[in-house]
Amino acid sequence: MTSLNLRGIFPPLPTSFDRDENLLPEKIRFNIERLGRYDLAGFLILGSNGEQVMLSETEKIKAIAAAREALPEGRILLAGTGCQSTRETISLTRAAAAEGAHAVLVINPSYYKGNMNHDELVKHYFDVAEASPVPVLVYNMPANTGVDMTPRMIIAMAEHPNIIGLKESGGNVVKMGEVLGAVKTGFQVLAGGAGFLLPALATGAVGGILASANIAPGHCIEIFRAFAEGDMIHAKEMQHRIIPVNSAVTARWGVPALKAAMDHLGLYGGHVRRPLLPLREDLRKQLLELMDDRDLVFYKQNNQ
Amino acid sequence: MTSLNLRGIFPPLPTSFDRDENLLPEKIRFNIERLGRYDLAGFLILGSNGEQVMLSETEKIKAIAAAREALPEGRILLAGTGCQSTRETISLTRAAAAEGAHAVLVINPSYYKGNMNHDELVKHYFDVAEASPVPVLVYNMPANTGVDMTPRMIIAMAEHPNIIGLKESGGNVVKMGEVLGAVKTGFQVLAGGAGFLLPALATGAVGGILASANIAPGHCIEIFRAFAEGDMIHAKEMQHRIIPVNSAVTARWGVPALKAAMDHLGLYGGHVRRPLLPLREDLRKQLLELMDDRDLVFYKQNNQ
Amino acid sequence: MTSLNLRGIFPPLPTSFDRDENLLPEKIRFNIERLGRYDLAGFLILGSNGEQVMLSETEKIKAIAAAREALPEGRILLAGTGCQSTRETISLTRAAAAEGAHAVLVINPSYYKGNMNHDELVKHYFDVAEASPVPVLVYNMPANTGVDMTPRMIIAMAEHPNIIGLKESGGNVVKMGEVLGAVKTGFQVLAGGAGFLLPALATGAVGGILASANIAPGHCIEIFRAFAEGDMIHAKEMQHRIIPVNSAVTARWGVPALKAAMDHLGLYGGHVRRPLLPLREDLRKQLLELMDDRDLVFYKQNNQ
Amino acid sequence: MTSLNLRGIFPPLPTSFDRDENLLPEKIRFNIERLGRYDLAGFLILGSNGEQVMLSETEKIKAIAAAREALPEGRILLAGTGCQSTRETISLTRAAAAEGAHAVLVINPSYYKGNMNHDELVKHYFDVAEASPVPVLVYNMPANTGVDMTPRMIIAMAEHPNIIGLKESGGNVVKMGEVLGAVKTGFQVLAGGAGFLLPALATGAVGGILASANIAPGHCIEIFRAFAEGDMIHAKEMQHRIIPVNSAVTARWGVPALKAAMDHLGLYGGHVRRPLLPLREDLRKQLLELMDDRDLVFYKQNNQ
Repeated sequence: MTSLNLRGIFPPLPTSFDRDENLLPEKIRFNIERLGRYDLAGFLILGSNGEQVMLSETEKIKAIAAAREALPEGRILLAGTGCQSTRETISLTRAAAAEGAHAVLVINPSYYKGNMNHDELVKHYFDVAEASPVPVLVYNMPANTGVDMTPRMIIAMAEHPNIIGLKESGGNVVKMGEVLGAVKTGFQVLAGGAGFLLPALATGAVGGILASANIAPGHCIEIFRAFAEGDMIHAKEMQHRIIPVNSAVTARWGVPALKAAMDHLGLYGGHVRRPLLPLREDLRKQLLELMDDRDLVFYKQNNQ
Repeated sequence: MTSLNLRGIFPPLPTSFDRDENLLPEKIRFNIERLGRYDLAGFLILGSNGEQVMLSETEKIKAIAAAREALPEGRILLAGTGCQSTRETISLTRAAAAEGAHAVLVINPSYYKGNMNHDELVKHYFDVAEASPVPVLVYNMPANTGVDMTPRMIIAMAEHPNIIGLKESGGNVVKMGEVLGAVKTGFQVLAGGAGFLLPALATGAVGGILASANIAPGHCIEIFRAFAEGDMIHAKEMQHRIIPVNSAVTARWGVPALKAAMDHLGLYGGHVRRPLLPLREDLRKQLLELMDDRDLVFYKQNNQ
Repeated sequence: MTSLNLRGIFPPLPTSFDRDENLLPEKIRFNIERLGRYDLAGFLILGSNGEQVMLSETEKIKAIAAAREALPEGRILLAGTGCQSTRETISLTRAAAAEGAHAVLVINPSYYKGNMNHDELVKHYFDVAEASPVPVLVYNMPANTGVDMTPRMIIAMAEHPNIIGLKESGGNVVKMGEVLGAVKTGFQVLAGGAGFLLPALATGAVGGILASANIAPGHCIEIFRAFAEGDMIHAKEMQHRIIPVNSAVTARWGVPALKAAMDHLGLYGGHVRRPLLPLREDLRKQLLELMDDRDLVFYKQNNQ
Repeated sequence: MTSLNLRGIFPPLPTSFDRDENLLPEKIRFNIERLGRYDLAGFLILGSNGEQVMLSETEKIKAIAAAREALPEGRILLAGTGCQSTRETISLTRAAAAEGAHAVLVINPSYYKGNMNHDELVKHYFDVAEASPVPVLVYNMPANTGVDMTPRMIIAMAEHPNIIGLKESGGNVVKMGEVLGAVKTGFQVLAGGAGFLLPALATGAVGGILASANIAPGHCIEIFRAFAEGDMIHAKEMQHRIIPVNSAVTARWGVPALKAAMDHLGLYGGHVRRPLLPLREDLRKQLLELMDDRDLVFYKQNNQ
């Protein structure tokens, strides 16, 4: 079993497009270079915030390559490689490993919801883990997939030596606790949202892959550090403050809002791919007000 | 506006694979030739029963080409071309038209559920309809996508001259009625499931794209004809009888059951692509018992 | 087994309150007298539109008594007697029968959703049916209860000789068909919403208990008659027209809208009980515009 | 504003019935006396575990009176008084206060789900809080009600001086954080389930009302104390261990399992009211095995 240590905070990078929705690998690199000034554990390329389902296989590989090229020394690169079929997931996983990803994050297939039961999903993850040259993280994201993998499924998956962790984006802290109480030592749970980072850490998560880490990396890191140092009061206060902005760039308005916030902060947000539409101007104003309102530690252009 | 007439019954063909999950275009042709002996309005290739989300773009085009090649004179070929991005949907739509599909059936993007609101989805369908050389059918399949398009959305989409109809697979007959009460004359609604074919016809649907039409084409056609001839008693009796088998090969056990039933009847069902698994042996027995139990008009090898 | 014939249209009466939310039995009588001029099969008192869950047991019995008193000769009185416990349901059922209800409509208990499985619900209905002096109708209303009883449950319930039918308000025509294809002859299904009256009739329903029958009794009866006479084109056209208004007084704005519409037409709508609030003035205007817009056959004060 | 301090652990008592489903006030008293030997902050009578929705108003008042009579000095008695109408909720709230409840826990009305929007629910709670002689706690329990009150609703409710807290049973720690980041100082959030006690405390909850506190009061208290003392490792380990048993007596098998576990431990569990059925014998064995399996600190007959 791998010893890849996932402790800490990872931003799930958006994928950069120009006005015509074409991929801009140089802007992916730009964002990693800027965010790399913070004490992040690494980066996720091609997660839910990465419009992965909108990219061709060629584009996916280019995006991973760009991220790997810009990755600062000592940081971990995770690549999202889950597709609807096992064979395509394996193919992309191998390509990601070849491009230098340290581990892959595999969202579950979900189109045939009625068939995505225990046997199908456990076998899918085992087949992928068998074929993958790098460690595999299970990725549960029910808000997007419409499938919520059960603790029993995750516990079964964790028995494979090449499955090293779980990104849980449903915010279900009971599930995290049930999984951690049952699996092998060393299985690592990562919070999938900044809104529940602190409670997830309290129940045993080792860190988080957080959309908000793209715009407020220092804030997310401070919650993590305060918890690690036992300063629960400060951790809680920081946790409360980030929730409204985090909700805005995730559940409420999604990727268009995340990109708008990044543009506002001097990172590259840029364009979304249709059917996503740019954030409406009135909502963009609301977002900026929300960002002004709370005393968050946002990305700063000339910092550190 | 096109005059493509969609009245009647269409089977949504499964995509044929060998034991190693490789595409078998000849088996697609085989199934079309056999089913073509029935009085079907046409065929759908690459629908939900076609494991479309599991195929590469190259495979999708091969499957459409195979279907077109085998298509009997005078029948309509529909191709499922909906992808998660507008650009990929347009690209596949154009390729399908080039291969000879008479119209395309476009399922809505659904991954970014929180963003799939009225403006995004209406613009998506308008953009596709603008770019498509052939007429477009809207495809609503909430059980798989987790997104249920509203009557208001469908009514807005129907204003585009190149959007000629709706396949509604959610079984929502109120929605069908609300749409038909509001749209232009000539907009055609197709039932997306044999379990509600008759009630859909009663509320104004012109036919259906029905998984059961792959295994009981004569039965589905008989419901359609009895309704058209005003024989509501017979139509109702035939409707009641098909429901349990239809549920088995759709909502209950899905594509693996449909393929097992086709194998049993002398058509080519064959293998599924993982994460789908072959129908468990005990369930296959239940399925065959269910098929024996009701006096359904199944596909017959040497008939007509 | 009873020979109670439920063919036709029933309005589920709202319960009448004054400004202080006190029960007004005389207004219940008034509405029945006025609506009784139409060729309705009967009336339902204490259904979902009757704010049943808001009434004390004493008030429930008074409401039933008022309805019975005003009931025109030859019409059927159904009373909604489902409560969260079996014992309270039995107690109210007996009281309703004693007040002269011809049958009871029993919504399923739903608070302990996780426990409301096959065994619990079938036993509940059997226990009630055993104890009831009058026939029992099963009432499925998932939009309010959050529990959707399965075909298998309904089919099991239908085996009891004192359970004579089902009011299905979920609009699930597949379920109706599956139930009717499996139960004893004489089991009667009633549509629970005017939006799917015609498709329900096509699949074998004998009539409907329809909120819209409080405001457009003639329109609902005309759909029923056109279907019975085989005039499917007229039936369909009438069906399409009623959907938007029906949705407004049910799923969209609910009982406050139904009462506002009744007030507008010269029936007694009156006040709702909190937490329901009176329909907001802007929505009331929208409702009246919607009522003007389509050429519906509404209740007329001086008609027939 | 009241200074009622809700810090700590409360068991939500089941309501005791005999074989004929009749209320046994003496068994309620018995359970309180036995559980009172633990360092619990108080008790909740007539919560979701109390089969409140199955009781007549007379029985509810008797149950509250029994609880008050047995309440040890210095402990807090909470009574669940939420009903479907505002008027009945106010009436029961006043009766509960008259019987000596220190505060009331008010679950939201939920039958008219489509109407249970912001205005209706905020006004409902304000009306109850105005009329209540004792402080009011908002109670959100979406698994049973099918309505999940939003942070915005809770924040609005918290502005009333007589609304002092929230029991959140949905396990939504993001909501807890968002509420606590926005409300007045002194508003108290209580976890509604032992499965997420520790993460809730981490995000700012002051304690919990926990079904498991009926059977493992010492275990729940130990999680609370370990957290208060900053021993996060021990708290987490205790948290993980309780989840499977807690799930069994709540989401998985519910009140029948909770009562079976209490019987097993020497407390009075007794009978449930139909439609609930006693825990099936095979499930009872599974439950007892589950209880043996983990090293939980269960209630002990001769302890302390």
